[in-house]
Amino acid sequence: MLKLSKLLLHSRNQLSQKRLFAEVANDYQWLHGMSTLAGLSAARQVFLPDGRSADKIFAPYSIYKGKAALSASPILPTFSKLESGDFRVDRRGVIFLTFWPAIGERKYDWDKRQTFALSATEIGSLISLGPKDSCEFFHDPSMLSSNAGQVRKSLSIKAHDNSGGYFISLNVVNNILKTNDRFVVPVTTAEFAVMRTAFNFALPHIMGWDQYTNQPPKRIDEK
Amino acid sequence: MLKLSKLLLHSRNQLSQKRLFAEVANDYQWLHGMSTLAGLSAARQVFLPDGRSADKIFAPYSIYKGKAALSASPILPTFSKLESGDFRVDRRGVIFLTFWPAIGERKYDWDKRQTFALSATEIGSLISLGPKDSCEFFHDPSMLSSNAGQVRKSLSIKAHDNSGGYFISLNVVNNILKTNDRFVVPVTTAEFAVMRTAFNFALPHIMGWDQYTNQPPKRIDEK
Amino acid sequence: MLKLSKLLLHSRNQLSQKRLFAEVANDYQWLHGMSTLAGLSAARQVFLPDGRSADKIFAPYSIYKGKAALSASPILPTFSKLESGDFRVDRRGVIFLTFWPAIGERKYDWDKRQTFALSATEIGSLISLGPKDSCEFFHDPSMLSSNAGQVRKSLSIKAHDNSGGYFISLNVVNNILKTNDRFVVPVTTAEFAVMRTAFNFALPHIMGWDQYTNQPPKRIDEK
Amino acid sequence: MLKLSKLLLHSRNQLSQKRLFAEVANDYQWLHGMSTLAGLSAARQVFLPDGRSADKIFAPYSIYKGKAALSASPILPTFSKLESGDFRVDRRGVIFLTFWPAIGERKYDWDKRQTFALSATEIGSLISLGPKDSCEFFHDPSMLSSNAGQVRKSLSIKAHDNSGGYFISLNVVNNILKTNDRFVVPVTTAEFAVMRTAFNFALPHIMGWDQYTNQPPKRIDEK
Repeated sequence: MLKLSKLLLHSRNQLSQKRLFAEVANDYQWLHGMSTLAGLSAARQVFLPDGRSADKIFAPYSIYKGKAALSASPILPTFSKLESGDFRVDRRGVIFLTFWPAIGERKYDWDKRQTFALSATEIGSLISLGPKDSCEFFHDPSMLSSNAGQVRKSLSIKAHDNSGGYFISLNVVNNILKTNDRFVVPVTTAEFAVMRTAFNFALPHIMGWDQYTNQPPKRIDEK
Repeated sequence: MLKLSKLLLHSRNQLSQKRLFAEVANDYQWLHGMSTLAGLSAARQVFLPDGRSADKIFAPYSIYKGKAALSASPILPTFSKLESGDFRVDRRGVIFLTFWPAIGERKYDWDKRQTFALSATEIGSLISLGPKDSCEFFHDPSMLSSNAGQVRKSLSIKAHDNSGGYFISLNVVNNILKTNDRFVVPVTTAEFAVMRTAFNFALPHIMGWDQYTNQPPKRIDEK
Repeated sequence: MLKLSKLLLHSRNQLSQKRLFAEVANDYQWLHGMSTLAGLSAARQVFLPDGRSADKIFAPYSIYKGKAALSASPILPTFSKLESGDFRVDRRGVIFLTFWPAIGERKYDWDKRQTFALSATEIGSLISLGPKDSCEFFHDPSMLSSNAGQVRKSLSIKAHDNSGGYFISLNVVNNILKTNDRFVVPVTTAEFAVMRTAFNFALPHIMGWDQYTNQPPKRIDEK
Repeated sequence: MLKLSKLLLHSRNQLSQKRLFAEVANDYQWLHGMSTLAGLSAARQVFLPDGRSADKIFAPYSIYKGKAALSASPILPTFSKLESGDFRVDRRGVIFLTFWPAIGERKYDWDKRQTFALSATEIGSLISLGPKDSCEFFHDPSMLSSNAGQVRKSLSIKAHDNSGGYFISLNVVNNILKTNDRFVVPVTTAEFAVMRTAFNFALPHIMGWDQYTNQPPKRIDEK
């Protein structure tokens, strides 16, 4: 039954899903404080070391609940080439959370989405939560710009009283638009276990440590 | 002694094993609601991005017990190419469980097998089970078709009273064929630890998250 | 100080280490019940799918203690190509443990080594041991041959009373050679944590599940 | 707020960061007891099996606190080619910790850094620490040289009384330079969880076990 309702929900939201895939890239540019045009050209400057452009992959882990939906995707770091020919992390990777509200039975409004990008240390906090623990993070997406302090985002993860799951809530106060959005998604123990495993898998990649270990083995010739 | 009996069992079941490898593909097609012919042609439409067809790999983790055997294999998601050139998950991956009954001492009947495909969240439930926990999942393989509700599958995982292992049971009620199949496989702590580690390893791949992290590193050139 | 003594021990055992690397392959052939000649030619039949022979890698995790040394290395499964062109696991992978005795202060005798090959389920048992748990495995390396029952190996892992570490012991009774070898290696919590992490890493590879996930992503073209 | 202060700190330390990237290689050479010249030429002898030199990657996990900063990076093992054509680990991998002191509000002095290279077993100790555990390691970087005993390094990891985090401290006593440096970095539960996940990820690579599992699958042709 549970399974059945989930499937129905899937088909009804197929349209908004497709829009989701298309627009995450835009959100990401916004997150990193790029204007639309600058963002586009910056995106075009993203090349693989050998000159090909990277394919984008869309495989979010999405959870649809009564009042809102929540989706998580990893975004890898970018590297700069140093004069020495070596590479260093330029922009750190994140796990990108997107919340969007329910606007009826199993209907969700993607246009009203809000996002939150978890840093490595925030992921560390999430994956080490005990069954009764809680944590909360605060971001200012306009930090270091003239709009600093105008938009305040807080993400809170709170243990359920008895089920072993968590409430994941995002609150966005935007003083420029005079808006205050709040999303609450109850996440079951099983769903949180998926997030924990997937985030644990993604964390070394987000930190760029997979680039150390992807190197071919170093060899020293025998004397 | 334990080891000895396991080996004997292996050789006696070699034949049914070979049939297992050959037929999993069929079951998988069936699972996804394809008729035999449609399934075959659909299978032929599965190509790698560069046009080669993928080799199939058979490396199930199998557990043979007194009344039934249980086998687990991961099945990866498929991706669709979007008009933008990007890829998104089309059909989600699963861990495919197969049960087949014992029909004598160390003889098993592969023709009487039943299957259950664990979703990412169901895998999350399984790998987060505490030593005294239980869980149960319900599937309708004909959901969304005219046969909806005619076949009901339930998978249950229940902690042993004292050993630290689990009973994994599959019950399939088929109202069309008027059949009711039940399999119970007692799984030791060690066997469950293998499943937990292997499922934990497979989960990010089943979700398609390995495709994010398999991308070559993105590079932004220094100014 | 501890560190210092470990380094000294390293240099003194350099010679036996080199012999270790060279002889593990022989032991492995023996383990799989091949005679020396058959073993050699079988080894030559091991090819990569594309015809090149695989490089052998020697990176054992070794622990040197007062009365014996213990070394662990993963050995991957081999695959057979089916008529369909698909691959299935032919010989399962193992983690290969080698014990060899101390014959003086920081001197060890590699010629007196004994081996034990942990199966996937035995690895599952080891990595799920609680701080006060123990387990024991029994192998007959001549099983299914005319020498069945003549050599009996037992590996035991027992929790220390108070330190959080384990005693890992191998006992080999050989009725043909009339020998009875016993090795005991006390393993600290830290060393056992390395084994747990490394075995956990190796387990999906030993099962062959990495071959599922190493496949290029499957693509279904958009209609 | 927390986030804001972290960002400011980042930009202020950008310069010292760049110097960090450039100088880790030098430290590493020193760590392995090479003189500057010998070290340079040894570094030039590091080739990939196919003759290309390896790109260096800089993606440290860095923690900036009131009195000092701490940074961690994995360094992979090097392999020697044996006469047989096989490869064995020559120099084991480590996780390289660098400490450098604060010299004002959010200003740090990279020139006063000290380093500590964690071995596989020391990493095992760190990742298995319980919430109230502590551990301490002692290194002599000049061991086996004429300066043995002149420099003594000790790294200590101690549980906080109540927060669930740890104090990570490095003490370096140099009898040649008559210096005694001490760094203490309080690490939160979240930061330690990142280290635990990243170290757990890196450990099999540091041991060289990824080279076993990176091999193409071995195939035995069907009879």
